[in-house]
Amino acid sequence: MKTENSSNRIVVSSRVRLARNLRGTPFPGWAKKADRQRVLEMLQPLVESTGEMKELSVSKSMDGLGALDKQLLVERHLISREHAAKNVGSGVVINQSESVSVMINEEDHLRMQAIRPGLQLQKVHGIIDKVDSELETKVEYAFSPKHGYLTACPTNVGTGMRASAMLHLPGLVLHEQINQIIQAVNKLGLAVRGLYGEGTEALGNVFQVSNQSTLGEKESNVIERLNKVIHQIIEHEENARVSLLDKKPHMIYDQVGRAHGILGSAHSMNSKEAMNLLSMMRLGVDLEILPGLDRALLDGLFITTQPAHLQKTATGKLSAEERDTLRAEIIRTALKGTPRPREFKTGQDGSKEGKSNE
Amino acid sequence: MKTENSSNRIVVSSRVRLARNLRGTPFPGWAKKADRQRVLEMLQPLVESTGEMKELSVSKSMDGLGALDKQLLVERHLISREHAAKNVGSGVVINQSESVSVMINEEDHLRMQAIRPGLQLQKVHGIIDKVDSELETKVEYAFSPKHGYLTACPTNVGTGMRASAMLHLPGLVLHEQINQIIQAVNKLGLAVRGLYGEGTEALGNVFQVSNQSTLGEKESNVIERLNKVIHQIIEHEENARVSLLDKKPHMIYDQVGRAHGILGSAHSMNSKEAMNLLSMMRLGVDLEILPGLDRALLDGLFITTQPAHLQKTATGKLSAEERDTLRAEIIRTALKGTPRPREFKTGQDGSKEGKSNE
Repeated sequence: MKTENSSNRIVVSSRVRLARNLRGTPFPGWAKKADRQRVLEMLQPLVESTGEMKELSVSKSMDGLGALDKQLLVERHLISREHAAKNVGSGVVINQSESVSVMINEEDHLRMQAIRPGLQLQKVHGIIDKVDSELETKVEYAFSPKHGYLTACPTNVGTGMRASAMLHLPGLVLHEQINQIIQAVNKLGLAVRGLYGEGTEALGNVFQVSNQSTLGEKESNVIERLNKVIHQIIEHEENARVSLLDKKPHMIYDQVGRAHGILGSAHSMNSKEAMNLLSMMRLGVDLEILPGLDRALLDGLFITTQPAHLQKTATGKLSAEERDTLRAEIIRTALKGTPRPREFKTGQDGSKEGKSNE
Repeated sequence: MKTENSSNRIVVSSRVRLARNLRGTPFPGWAKKADRQRVLEMLQPLVESTGEMKELSVSKSMDGLGALDKQLLVERHLISREHAAKNVGSGVVINQSESVSVMINEEDHLRMQAIRPGLQLQKVHGIIDKVDSELETKVEYAFSPKHGYLTACPTNVGTGMRASAMLHLPGLVLHEQINQIIQAVNKLGLAVRGLYGEGTEALGNVFQVSNQSTLGEKESNVIERLNKVIHQIIEHEENARVSLLDKKPHMIYDQVGRAHGILGSAHSMNSKEAMNLLSMMRLGVDLEILPGLDRALLDGLFITTQPAHLQKTATGKLSAEERDTLRAEIIRTALKGTPRPREFKTGQDGSKEGKSNE
């Protein structure tokens, strides 16, 4: 039970994506525009016809999506930043619950992913494996008995699988142990990245941990190994939190209290500050410093206060300053009436008591 | 009426101090220890016997005060930092309401001041003038018909008077006009300094404005001139506030809201941050963004959260970290239950409304 709770507190989401290509067809990066269009026209209806896509949310050619809608999909982790830059000849198909999305003609002909909240890598692998198997009955994949699935980038050859989890690690960051952990995880052949994948910053103390290698190991083994390491990271994060609460309680209560105070009253806030303060509130919920506050409310704000989501709620084009104003207003409104954080007090005799403020 | 209100909002306090020395007695800086002790023994009972000192708060030789008590008096603006460093042969006499204090053997034999909240320079001058006149019937001052009262430092020769007011000028600081104002005031022969006088920082956006010159001008003229300039500064400050509310309302509501949010929930805070945030809350009270909050509560916290005042409330010696914790706790407790700031909202049609949040 403890592990299950910890996983859901610390692991924001689990994702598995598979890279697949059609036999005898040039990879998208080498293909002519007409070839890419032909591939898209062929694959899009096949993807739509899979069981997962019975209830469709989006099925579009990339030139049929505006810049804002593309950015929205990036912020929801449904397409890559690279794919958002694509136009004619590329497409995306997403199911209604947004748990499965398939990019057509990104770097590979097919990039399909399943994503779910919490730690459930086997489950999401099962979901995307089913989509993959359905498609494999209808098209012939580029596959080499020696190397496995062939992909545009050699780092994906083999299983074509990248399994990853988003971990919320404020304890390790505040404890200044995060770099040590990242180095250790790297040595185990796993990658640690920021919020939007390779080369991005770990905004809001969220880190993506994923497998590096796709060759010479079965998918289930890779996932099992990743799972094991994630459980170790969770344990380190839990220990860091316990240690901080024990040794620097004022610092923790200060960070959580300030986050609640600022988010509840600011009138202008950029995206980075919002994510970092929401991260501190999420930590506050986990540590029961913010009792009665729903973690899902914070996770929702994490998404809805990002630039494209904000722009979507406005009528005219927002300037950066107007976005900051709107972001602060949305957060302020959402947090209105939520309970104040518990207070930590040190008596003058040095005794400690955690006192609720309600 | 408007001016009266503005004065009390913006002028924190008014002070007049007089420097006096005994005829035929070396100034404290040149005197032998025995001379200084003789002067102290002679003056202390005379000062105590003045009408203002009928109800005494403190009458001490400086070696009879601990470092903490000295620092407390500095934080209350009752003695100078320099005087706090003195020991045997120097003393201080303070009345019960702490509106009048007399330092004996600071730089001069007598440094007497009257201080009152708000703008009332004539009044405080009247108070200290009376103390001065009483003493003058009992001792002979060093006085030259040509130069006036003689003092240790030539900058005080003449009237020996320094009249000053503490001004809270957050509008001019946020509007980035403060340096311009300081330069203009300097050109008028007045000095602008920080919270603790010469060479100190303007913490909490509080500036001290005082006369520079003590020669060739009657006391009443100096005070009248200072008064006039202070009214001009008040007008500039009021204009800056109106302009900020008009052009950058989100910035103002953001600053006030954040100050309220942080002060109400932080668990660790240094003195500088506390003063700057309290300054923003004071601005919020003035602008009615914080309706129903008592300005005196904030002014009280401004004093009681300073290091020596904090130490005084604790039993053991506090480390800087413990002081920061206690400071945050005192402020949090004081602000508990105070109303939330009003909110500023811009409708999506661009219309503005100031909406109360209670």
